[in-house]
Amino acid sequence: MSKIDTPNQFLTTLFNAAVDAADPAKIISDYLPSAPKGRTIVIGAGKALSQMGKAFEDAWAIERGTPLEGVIVTRYDYACECKNFEVLEAAHPVPDEAGLVGAKRLIDAVSNLTPDDLVVALISGGGSSLLPYPADGLTLADEIAVNEALLASGAPISAMNTVRKHISSIKGGRLAVAAYPAKVVSLLVSDIPGDHPQFIASGPTVADEGTRYDALAIIFQYEMKLPDAVMAHIQSDAANAPLPDDEKLARAEHHIFASASKSLEAAQKCAEEAGIETHILSDAIEGEAREAARTQAAIAKEILLRDRPFKKPILLLSGGATTVTLKGNGKGGRNTEFLLSFALEISGETGIHSLCADTDGIDGSEDNAGAFVNGDTASKIRQAGLDPIAYLQNNDAWTAFEKVDALFIPGPTGTNVNDFRAIFISG
Amino acid sequence: MSKIDTPNQFLTTLFNAAVDAADPAKIISDYLPSAPKGRTIVIGAGKALSQMGKAFEDAWAIERGTPLEGVIVTRYDYACECKNFEVLEAAHPVPDEAGLVGAKRLIDAVSNLTPDDLVVALISGGGSSLLPYPADGLTLADEIAVNEALLASGAPISAMNTVRKHISSIKGGRLAVAAYPAKVVSLLVSDIPGDHPQFIASGPTVADEGTRYDALAIIFQYEMKLPDAVMAHIQSDAANAPLPDDEKLARAEHHIFASASKSLEAAQKCAEEAGIETHILSDAIEGEAREAARTQAAIAKEILLRDRPFKKPILLLSGGATTVTLKGNGKGGRNTEFLLSFALEISGETGIHSLCADTDGIDGSEDNAGAFVNGDTASKIRQAGLDPIAYLQNNDAWTAFEKVDALFIPGPTGTNVNDFRAIFISG
Repeated sequence: MSKIDTPNQFLTTLFNAAVDAADPAKIISDYLPSAPKGRTIVIGAGKALSQMGKAFEDAWAIERGTPLEGVIVTRYDYACECKNFEVLEAAHPVPDEAGLVGAKRLIDAVSNLTPDDLVVALISGGGSSLLPYPADGLTLADEIAVNEALLASGAPISAMNTVRKHISSIKGGRLAVAAYPAKVVSLLVSDIPGDHPQFIASGPTVADEGTRYDALAIIFQYEMKLPDAVMAHIQSDAANAPLPDDEKLARAEHHIFASASKSLEAAQKCAEEAGIETHILSDAIEGEAREAARTQAAIAKEILLRDRPFKKPILLLSGGATTVTLKGNGKGGRNTEFLLSFALEISGETGIHSLCADTDGIDGSEDNAGAFVNGDTASKIRQAGLDPIAYLQNNDAWTAFEKVDALFIPGPTGTNVNDFRAIFISG
Repeated sequence: MSKIDTPNQFLTTLFNAAVDAADPAKIISDYLPSAPKGRTIVIGAGKALSQMGKAFEDAWAIERGTPLEGVIVTRYDYACECKNFEVLEAAHPVPDEAGLVGAKRLIDAVSNLTPDDLVVALISGGGSSLLPYPADGLTLADEIAVNEALLASGAPISAMNTVRKHISSIKGGRLAVAAYPAKVVSLLVSDIPGDHPQFIASGPTVADEGTRYDALAIIFQYEMKLPDAVMAHIQSDAANAPLPDDEKLARAEHHIFASASKSLEAAQKCAEEAGIETHILSDAIEGEAREAARTQAAIAKEILLRDRPFKKPILLLSGGATTVTLKGNGKGGRNTEFLLSFALEISGETGIHSLCADTDGIDGSEDNAGAFVNGDTASKIRQAGLDPIAYLQNNDAWTAFEKVDALFIPGPTGTNVNDFRAIFISG
């Protein structure tokens, strides 16, 4: 910690490192392909597409300078203006007609290209829902029914996307096949635990590593009730997505551009350069925010008390997206809710400091990304005249932290790899 | 794992090691004091007192053979017959008149002893509530009011017991002072994270390490509203409990007899002897069972996927007591509820096995202590015709696990150090 003045400054530095590692504007130039002899067509879909599209065209203008064209799809209300691309909007998480129009536009945009042309596919989470395009013989209604069955099944995202790619005309590498014989370079922002490219947005430009039998196994395992036409399709060979040995995919490459894991690793590197041993618990912690906090607080206290499972001083990092089941009418988001619960659990302990914040810079409805807490925070809230337990029950962590000047307000960051949680046990 | 046939056998061995380490009948002979020249008087209070009393008198008969007498207090319906001691019952967690009678009986039992006499104090969790005995000038109603304010404050158990011992005629070492000049040996079962003897049952036989100012600080910090008489008392020096340098405590000694931490360490030793690296996450994980499971599942999957924060194969242990907020009307306890949620989170993963069980042998209302799960469990439940998500929502984990023969039924164990959770990531 020689380079660090206070725990909160240290934690802020880590957040900045995590966000920088996920900021398209800061890192996309490391991933630019060479300019082709022919045309450069940018396509893509996902919730982060506006930032990715803008960052790509800015970097391309500086580094390559050749003309760009293309069309990208993002969620309703998420579009911003790009100089070179048309930006379409569609529904998420349940697909709609606009998504089908968008998917067809993407296929059209990469059709009839030559080997001299380059297709850059920008893909982020949300792309599965934003690009419905049912296989021949199926309808948009069928695809929507499948989507609803998947969301209700409890299946993990990778299992859901395995089913999706076997009923689609665009997923599972089919968009890249449509671009043949052009070269396809995919730049991906991952929201999938494990960062497997074939599952991000159901891999429209990435070869499938399995077959339709994988989809059937999942449908059976999760007892999904799917339309008859869908079941008939999956039982035909037409459902198979292109395999890695498909020659039309031979020139396709992909790069994970940003992910929760990469951001946590960037924060870890930053902390370890400051001399603090760091462990990543998980990049995908989900569940009720206040409850996730209790388990992490128990681990932090075990470290403080008994130097296990890690020896202090130690930094614990985690990512993912917790949830808040609203019961009150207060202000705040999942990170401040996590932190108020955490503050209550570590109340009175010396040597535990935490910053949790949304990497997009906005946690819930207010202008903060998160907050700072330590073992004194709950007492300070009480001394300020508020009952922290009552504020937690009313989902009003923001007000409690605002009262004791503990909010963390970096402003919107222009990227999003979900939550950033850092717990520093200095001992 | 050379000595282990299957993951479930391995996990069962660990549970047995944890329970054995907390079983008074198996370990109390290691803690017997020498027989005194004079009388041996056994006193004590706590929820585990019947087992502790019985185990003590059995071991004493074999190892020492001298006469025993005494009186112990346990919770209503928890009493069993002891050959040598009177077993009283009182209310928990809110004290009652019977508890006050019991506390006075304990003080009487150790009064007027000589230096040749031995007092053995058996103490377990619950003793604070079972032994109300207000300080001079305060009433039982005052002590009950304090207890209710403490339970509503959200303060941790150690903070609550700091207040309790400064308004009492028996807590904070005063029972041991009453026994002077006899020798006092306390054998403790800890339910306090950190196992500090002065906080277990508010330390009736253990010197206080603080002063009444610590109690005042906590009352201020948690904004407790206490009766005026109580506040006046705590502001007088009469509230100070005996300090470690009190000469009347010079012959008092204490030994932690069993604790969640000791049981987890016993399981850790057993696993490491089988060649499996093991880490204890915490001996005090609390919160909603199904939510605690989600965080632990995320960590297990991070290990499976990326070998962090630990390299597989690895065993993760934790203790504590989760809770279940009932919303349905199914069967099961907090350990099976944890496990059904965990099974859903790890569904489809290969190489994760878990056994969670109540160390008393009974998880909730049925005859099982817990259950076994792995990545196939949720599928098996589905294939048996049940929807595991619906069964979790109905708090009916027992039925789901019963259907797939996954219940763990060792029978009542005769001890209790709360939950035992073992997650083995074999990879």
